[in-house]
Amino acid sequence: MKAVKIGICGLGTVGAGTFNLLSSNCEIINAHANREIEVTLVGARRDNPVCDLSDTAVVRDIFAVANSDVDIVVELIGGIDVAKNLVLTAIANGKHVVTANKALIAEYGNEIFAAARKQGVQVAYEAAVAGGIPIIKNLREGLAANKIEWLAGIINGTGNFILTEMRDKGRDFAEVLAEAQALGYAEADPAFDVEGIDAAHKLVILAALAFGMPMRFDAVYTEGITGIEPVDVVYAEELGYRIKHLGIARRREAGVELRVHPTLVPENCLIAQVDGVMNAVMVKGDAVGSTLYYGAGAGAGPTASAVVADIIDVSRSLGVGAERAIPHYGFVDDVVADLPILDINEAETACYLRASVLDQPGVLLVIAQIMSNHAISIEAIIQKPPDVGEEHVPLIMLTNQTSEKNLRGAIADIERLDTVKGPLVHIRVEALDT
Amino acid sequence: MKAVKIGICGLGTVGAGTFNLLSSNCEIINAHANREIEVTLVGARRDNPVCDLSDTAVVRDIFAVANSDVDIVVELIGGIDVAKNLVLTAIANGKHVVTANKALIAEYGNEIFAAARKQGVQVAYEAAVAGGIPIIKNLREGLAANKIEWLAGIINGTGNFILTEMRDKGRDFAEVLAEAQALGYAEADPAFDVEGIDAAHKLVILAALAFGMPMRFDAVYTEGITGIEPVDVVYAEELGYRIKHLGIARRREAGVELRVHPTLVPENCLIAQVDGVMNAVMVKGDAVGSTLYYGAGAGAGPTASAVVADIIDVSRSLGVGAERAIPHYGFVDDVVADLPILDINEAETACYLRASVLDQPGVLLVIAQIMSNHAISIEAIIQKPPDVGEEHVPLIMLTNQTSEKNLRGAIADIERLDTVKGPLVHIRVEALDT
Repeated sequence: MKAVKIGICGLGTVGAGTFNLLSSNCEIINAHANREIEVTLVGARRDNPVCDLSDTAVVRDIFAVANSDVDIVVELIGGIDVAKNLVLTAIANGKHVVTANKALIAEYGNEIFAAARKQGVQVAYEAAVAGGIPIIKNLREGLAANKIEWLAGIINGTGNFILTEMRDKGRDFAEVLAEAQALGYAEADPAFDVEGIDAAHKLVILAALAFGMPMRFDAVYTEGITGIEPVDVVYAEELGYRIKHLGIARRREAGVELRVHPTLVPENCLIAQVDGVMNAVMVKGDAVGSTLYYGAGAGAGPTASAVVADIIDVSRSLGVGAERAIPHYGFVDDVVADLPILDINEAETACYLRASVLDQPGVLLVIAQIMSNHAISIEAIIQKPPDVGEEHVPLIMLTNQTSEKNLRGAIADIERLDTVKGPLVHIRVEALDT
Repeated sequence: MKAVKIGICGLGTVGAGTFNLLSSNCEIINAHANREIEVTLVGARRDNPVCDLSDTAVVRDIFAVANSDVDIVVELIGGIDVAKNLVLTAIANGKHVVTANKALIAEYGNEIFAAARKQGVQVAYEAAVAGGIPIIKNLREGLAANKIEWLAGIINGTGNFILTEMRDKGRDFAEVLAEAQALGYAEADPAFDVEGIDAAHKLVILAALAFGMPMRFDAVYTEGITGIEPVDVVYAEELGYRIKHLGIARRREAGVELRVHPTLVPENCLIAQVDGVMNAVMVKGDAVGSTLYYGAGAGAGPTASAVVADIIDVSRSLGVGAERAIPHYGFVDDVVADLPILDINEAETACYLRASVLDQPGVLLVIAQIMSNHAISIEAIIQKPPDVGEEHVPLIMLTNQTSEKNLRGAIADIERLDTVKGPLVHIRVEALDT
């Protein structure tokens, strides 16, 4: 059988990892693919010393790869504008594409898939979400018989590392972030990770596959972890919860909730135990129930593992024709429905609230009355004695499930009280059991 | 496009679950498969009241299904002899097969796959291991770029339920087993579950996919959980471990370890937190690192989820030809290698030992000397004060990693001491970190 010709664009961490994995595990890879997979061309602005390129043709212009005779173009340059141009050029030339680019797929996946459909080629993107965890494959194929009810994922390793350190060692956010930057987990500009933009990219892709809808990066509600204080980590623990930065997609009757935010999760829930830079995604299907997929979300090896799995799948199915290829959204394109994305005010969650209140009689009563006025019931409450010389005390409340709208109304009313100092801390709670 | 004709054999829990899932989620299923999937024939000795069969042809002779015009025969009758005959008949007639039958695949998979290869048909068996968790797909496709180093799974829900109850409530084995039987988790003859035979069937399948080797049910070392006492659960916890019944497959230089036995797992390891009837499989690949897959291992919904995922995959790839189908062992047949299975004496593990020793000076010294003679180093030790009127005390030791052979030598020597009463309790320990 003819060898499959691969062109790799980009020789950064992931590109080099992919090149090296295709070489080191070539026997295993070819045995799975049932044909020889050969890197015939690499496009990179410069060589990478970790790759032995002596037997491989290298070009400095990545577009030369898209215009070459390769069967599959592997886009690992990252970024958006050039990557998009490269991928669309490859597609226009009838090449299949494998990419690890979450931003590209989340923001331009719809356009790219449409172009690929027109040309009858495949665009595979397993490595775009949760690194080495085959979560795209699980949603698109393994759970394909299920109506997916919701999914919730720890899909940014840097954020999870920071929250884990804050809990384990009582450290504060800024200090751990500085360490994460020193360790190379976080970029110099960490906003992408800690503000949830990276997680939002991945959530959009997972939701598209789970619900058969287009990528809707424009519509994700995103809240970062920069405001999480060590004291909230401690109170959460006292209540039996851990704080995780989750991407959550939930199918409601009226539409889909798409939100990234810090979340209290019951400590006996498996995803609460996922620590450090590791990723995990829970998926709830109507037939299968709750499932969880765990692994490394980044790094050369795990990401290359996902890229090469895609290369194997695409190689094996070269020439089967579009009708037998696995559809880009999991669902065939003509049933992909533009489901409404619900505004965050329509979200339904339980909530953790922390207020700083005057230590005097009647304050709790007034707050309880406000909660009741907004139809919110309180599930647990902690009030701490005041520190020496401090006239305010922390008041922590855990509510039952309620609408975000009710909650925001109650928070506004409480913040208006003279007996309450400063804004309330407000962290959503997910039981992840229904 | 022509509808795909499905024939279901067996209308027990899984058969009925599959029939109903294909009906209730038919829109989602057809949208994933990119064609209509239709149950055109059911073979069952009797109807099942949970299925509405009014629009479906039903025959009492399941072999009539294998001889009909269906495209895919779904074998859900269970058992071995008739099921094997049915599957081989279906294959001989050029039908593709989907089965949930772990015993059949573990014991006769090699023969069945050879027959399927000859006929150019596919045999899919996702539901044979860990119910709704797409672990077959993950090993065969999602992790296909990796050299798999080891895997370890909680792959029998009944056993895990029993061990969970023993730990959570301090109950003893026999009592929890009786409850599991009453709840319908365990069969009247529970040996299949608690002696590890069921787990051994599943382990054999996972190992074949992980390492590209034939099914070797004849060669699995199997130890049940019937000997686990509540006191060992407590001491394990004191040492920072939980006891789980694991199926473990590990690639060594000299061959493959295939073993099912109770195992102490560090409590902060994710798989230690998998409780109740839930299943989970950890897989360590050289590129991806450690991954974990979690979900329900049994029941109508989860098992049907896996059966229907297979039906979708096979339906989508009808007619692609054997060279483009995913190979039965993950690896193409001609590289599947009959790797040697190591004898249990060649296994390398750490170990938990409990002895009942006379409460007198020098006993510990003698035991320490024996361990040293067998080149075993001790990592932790607990000695408890004697109960009132009791002259023996429990002595608990945790060893470093050593060979089973050394360990058995040391145990024999210790059991020969006059100061030691009765046989030692001996439970293997896996760190699952390398």
